Amino acid sequence: MRISTLGTGMVGHALATKLVSLGNEVMMGSRQAGNEKAVAWAAGAGPNASEGSFADAARFGEVVVNATAGASSLDVLAAVGAENLAGKVLIDVANPLDFSQGRPPTLTVCNTDSLGEQIQRAYPEARVVKTLNTMSCQIMVNPGLVPGRHTVFVCGNDADAKAQVAELLQSFGWPADSILDLGDITAARGTEMYLPLWLRLWGATGTGQLNIEVVRGA
Amino acid sequence: MRISTLGTGMVGHALATKLVSLGNEVMMGSRQAGNEKAVAWAAGAGPNASEGSFADAARFGEVVVNATAGASSLDVLAAVGAENLAGKVLIDVANPLDFSQGRPPTLTVCNTDSLGEQIQRAYPEARVVKTLNTMSCQIMVNPGLVPGRHTVFVCGNDADAKAQVAELLQSFGWPADSILDLGDITAARGTEMYLPLWLRLWGATGTGQLNIEVVRGA
Repeated sequence: MRISTLGTGMVGHALATKLVSLGNEVMMGSRQAGNEKAVAWAAGAGPNASEGSFADAARFGEVVVNATAGASSLDVLAAVGAENLAGKVLIDVANPLDFSQGRPPTLTVCNTDSLGEQIQRAYPEARVVKTLNTMSCQIMVNPGLVPGRHTVFVCGNDADAKAQVAELLQSFGWPADSILDLGDITAARGTEMYLPLWLRLWGATGTGQLNIEVVRGA
Repeated sequence: MRISTLGTGMVGHALATKLVSLGNEVMMGSRQAGNEKAVAWAAGAGPNASEGSFADAARFGEVVVNATAGASSLDVLAAVGAENLAGKVLIDVANPLDFSQGRPPTLTVCNTDSLGEQIQRAYPEARVVKTLNTMSCQIMVNPGLVPGRHTVFVCGNDADAKAQVAELLQSFGWPADSILDLGDITAARGTEMYLPLWLRLWGATGTGQLNIEVVRGA
């Protein structure tokens, strides 16, 4: 499959590398074609890896992954352009974290709205699926780093898009019964607002190699 | 131990009943002494159960449990009075949920502050410990309803108070190694902001008998 990953940070790098390793053709998008990090990644990742501008990458991909910093995701998608997102599955793994006042970060949007919803509203023809934003990028692409069962959430308005994303998650190593569909894109409020707890869990346990398992009673 | 539980709703009822069953003397506090629900509870719960006003109850307790609706907790504690909270462990299990705009509820405070912090700031001589607010009251007092391992969080500024609360949680049936200390009271932002996800988990699984287990890697 042709997939574009937007963003050259740790998350974009981890996802692009995993996707290439699974046999996908991946274009890493950045603000300007020729971005040093993206060029270095593409050079090292083999013949199925390439790089370009955000718009180049989105045009290339059948599926587009938003792996940019959440605080700038809407700007990045504006640079992509609605015409390059229409009809496509847009996987949003970003969190709207605001580090401008220091740490711990706050959220730029929460409670009555979410980044996932903002993106879906701005690009109504994209099929937005929010997923993987509740863990570090190492765990996203290698769930086996955390032992035993643990959960990855998906939400979005388009059932077929969620099914495609579930397949992609399984290719990453997520067991089908660890993928929990939370419903429509408004559930992004829940997974994004989990971030402050996640940051505390990291602090309390001393490791970012953690995740949560949803355990059910009768 | 003498414990006061503030609030006559499901959460207060469940906690008061559990605490009495464990041999504690419990006074259930409500807006006015003689509250119908509190009288009925005290009549049914045996000789160690009593009821009174919020101030009566807080005066009675060596430990005070805030089990009121989060949106009114600050009003309730104002009725209690700072003099009845000074030096005491104040266990805050409330969530600042706002149902005034319908469901799903939003939070009355989040992101840069939390109910737990508001309470600690308003009553600096109380030793506030936030805990148990991440699950239904059935699970709070009977963790075995959810099979296997799962986690309960505590946070607060006073280490001795957290140790006392951990003992109380263990008396409820929480294994010591399932009690995760998240640090100071600012971590209440994390556990309160988890609520929107928890409500979605309830919706997706069809049961409120659920909790999360924090699973760690290497």
